[in-house]
Amino acid sequence: MELLQVDTLEETFQKLESYARGDGPRGAGLAMETETIPFWQGSGRVLAENILSREDIPPAPRSVMDGYAVCSADTTGASESLPVFLRVTQEVEMGKLLCGKIGSGECAAIPTGGFLPAGCDAVVMEEYCETFGADQIAVYTAVSPGRNLVQTGDDVKKGETVLPRGKRLQAADLGVLAAIGKTEIPVYRPWRVHILSTGDEIVDPQEPLRAGKMRDVNSYTLSCMAQAYGFKTSFALLPDDEEILETRVREAMHACDLVIVSGGSSQGKKDATAKVIRKLASAGVLTHGIAVKPGKPTVSGFDEPTRCALLGLPGHPVAAALLFDLLAGRLWKQLSGEEKSEKPRFLYGTLSMNLPASPGRETLQLVRVYEENAEETEHAEKVGSGKTLRVVPILGKSGMIRTLSEADGYLVMERDEEGLKQGAMVKVQLF
Amino acid sequence: MELLQVDTLEETFQKLESYARGDGPRGAGLAMETETIPFWQGSGRVLAENILSREDIPPAPRSVMDGYAVCSADTTGASESLPVFLRVTQEVEMGKLLCGKIGSGECAAIPTGGFLPAGCDAVVMEEYCETFGADQIAVYTAVSPGRNLVQTGDDVKKGETVLPRGKRLQAADLGVLAAIGKTEIPVYRPWRVHILSTGDEIVDPQEPLRAGKMRDVNSYTLSCMAQAYGFKTSFALLPDDEEILETRVREAMHACDLVIVSGGSSQGKKDATAKVIRKLASAGVLTHGIAVKPGKPTVSGFDEPTRCALLGLPGHPVAAALLFDLLAGRLWKQLSGEEKSEKPRFLYGTLSMNLPASPGRETLQLVRVYEENAEETEHAEKVGSGKTLRVVPILGKSGMIRTLSEADGYLVMERDEEGLKQGAMVKVQLF
Repeated sequence: MELLQVDTLEETFQKLESYARGDGPRGAGLAMETETIPFWQGSGRVLAENILSREDIPPAPRSVMDGYAVCSADTTGASESLPVFLRVTQEVEMGKLLCGKIGSGECAAIPTGGFLPAGCDAVVMEEYCETFGADQIAVYTAVSPGRNLVQTGDDVKKGETVLPRGKRLQAADLGVLAAIGKTEIPVYRPWRVHILSTGDEIVDPQEPLRAGKMRDVNSYTLSCMAQAYGFKTSFALLPDDEEILETRVREAMHACDLVIVSGGSSQGKKDATAKVIRKLASAGVLTHGIAVKPGKPTVSGFDEPTRCALLGLPGHPVAAALLFDLLAGRLWKQLSGEEKSEKPRFLYGTLSMNLPASPGRETLQLVRVYEENAEETEHAEKVGSGKTLRVVPILGKSGMIRTLSEADGYLVMERDEEGLKQGAMVKVQLF
Repeated sequence: MELLQVDTLEETFQKLESYARGDGPRGAGLAMETETIPFWQGSGRVLAENILSREDIPPAPRSVMDGYAVCSADTTGASESLPVFLRVTQEVEMGKLLCGKIGSGECAAIPTGGFLPAGCDAVVMEEYCETFGADQIAVYTAVSPGRNLVQTGDDVKKGETVLPRGKRLQAADLGVLAAIGKTEIPVYRPWRVHILSTGDEIVDPQEPLRAGKMRDVNSYTLSCMAQAYGFKTSFALLPDDEEILETRVREAMHACDLVIVSGGSSQGKKDATAKVIRKLASAGVLTHGIAVKPGKPTVSGFDEPTRCALLGLPGHPVAAALLFDLLAGRLWKQLSGEEKSEKPRFLYGTLSMNLPASPGRETLQLVRVYEENAEETEHAEKVGSGKTLRVVPILGKSGMIRTLSEADGYLVMERDEEGLKQGAMVKVQLF
């Protein structure tokens, strides 16, 4: 029976991803539209295509030192006791090309970054030269061809892919785009996400806490997380009322790529979210409950006509935040290709205490990571380094947003794991 | 002689920090002004004060399960073979408080997140209960006081510091602020940073590459990095002209907290930047050249009347970016307190190859980090984990911005180090 089916986190993601990719009966997945923007607005945006260079960078050989551009053959045999003498016929200026060619027995003064004059194939550092009279230098070292140069295309070759599709652009990437003159770039349009926080007990953070009430946390946490992915967000607070919920979800489905209902982790409410998703989504409810702790009361669905994914997340803030990342965030990364180009966001460290597993459920455990001098411990001696990272679980009930704020990341205990022992080497996913 | 003095990176930072803190003769350091903003605009901003809670969260005991709120004493001795029978006199609804008290022999149905009624001290999960008739349940387990509850103040205690000064706010932090109803927050005003890219050879990225020219990379890379710190940025491209440079630096000093001149790493130009800083900054040139690779031709200064820091960074994009982070970025983190509350941005891994050191200079080596199954290697067997991280240096001349774009982070080789051996455990600072 669909209602009782409990998937693993991976199964849940696979079902959602399959529909989002357009593998459903109508073939209408989540929209991954692209738009073109000026490169300098690209920070935090995700490339929708591979970026190829139309030019070699640098376009010609350049010096990496202050010194003299020479024909390397002229320096053969030069040494501290037996210098070679060359005539300085020109001076390379930044931003200008020399018109003349440097002949044998001649050389040109050149600054760091200067383009190599014709006839030269190497640079001698000025430290190895001495000026004699107005236009002569003594060269006290032999240089091989290419010495102290960056060659044509050393940084980027014409036609080469410099940045891959899926790359979320950071400062250095903007630098690469500037260097190759790619001033207009194709990026993915951010998803539009609507977040509905439900619960008769939930009030706006501005309001004083009256008896039985709690302030809305999930609207703000989930919006901010979604914005970190670049998504456009909106949110609203709803009472526990299935009819209102249905109306608001239906409206949002037409305007958004992803609709999130948070709250309703108690028995009766969970069914309201599932009922609404079953009614409104063409693919119905994909998963109803996940074998993960925290995060069990998660519901997912997909609607092909509106190309909209639906997620019912637990009301507990930590569970909602983790599941948002592991389902919605991961979905974006898969569809955009960001997963492949992401920088590492994990580390390994030793666990500070025994951790019990939850039978039949995968466990997501929030942790802090400390650097410590572990010369005293047996483990560190074995590793041969004086340092190690200490992974300390943050214990606390899943609803406490503060534990998430304090956490550096989390570790995953598989459902068939028997628990982890103190001192075990564990992998931590960093936030 | 001041001109020939070469400091280490640490010495350079210490001198700059000392003036920025206001330890100079006039006591006028960098301005760390604060402003008050709505909490939901706080993402990426840095707290200027500790945030204390004015309330206990939760304000009263709440259930973490669907079940029945009971007086634990009533369940003493209850077991699967010998249940205790209780009368269900009320039902807790979300967002409402019960008016009545639960007496001995009575209980109240309660959903996850519901506030505990008066007279109760524990919750029995519904899985351990069975309904009998209209208003009776059989309880098949004994519960101790506090069972299945979050107690008053378990998440946050009244008067407790929930977020420290210097914290750069992320999603979960906004959730904490929402939870405690702290809707207006004190944050640091971002620094205003002006970036001057100098060089006759530098052209705007929009322009085609004419002979001898290179496109401006540093304006975009440095602006984007500065914006990631939250700074307000502006930039301009300048020719190699000391008079123009002086005019533009002087103007910027009056409007900004930090003025950066990039370019001019060749002998003649380096002096122009140093000359201008010496002329305009009350504290003169603090450091002229750093014993670090890349980044040697870095100049720093401080002006007390305008409370402005000045940095002359190398023209090489990678050097400029790294030094910006290690001087300007670190300065912000120190003065704002962010350094203390930062999440870990480093990891340990094994080096994939021998790395030579640079005699007399600290070396910053860009690296990539790969996760690999290292069961075959002796090292991994010793660690006792099947996985390890492999740290692969990115070799290339320092000017190549692409190497920075590809890097996951960098490692530091101390100036007295003899080089690092393949297989060594190294610490990587992640970007």
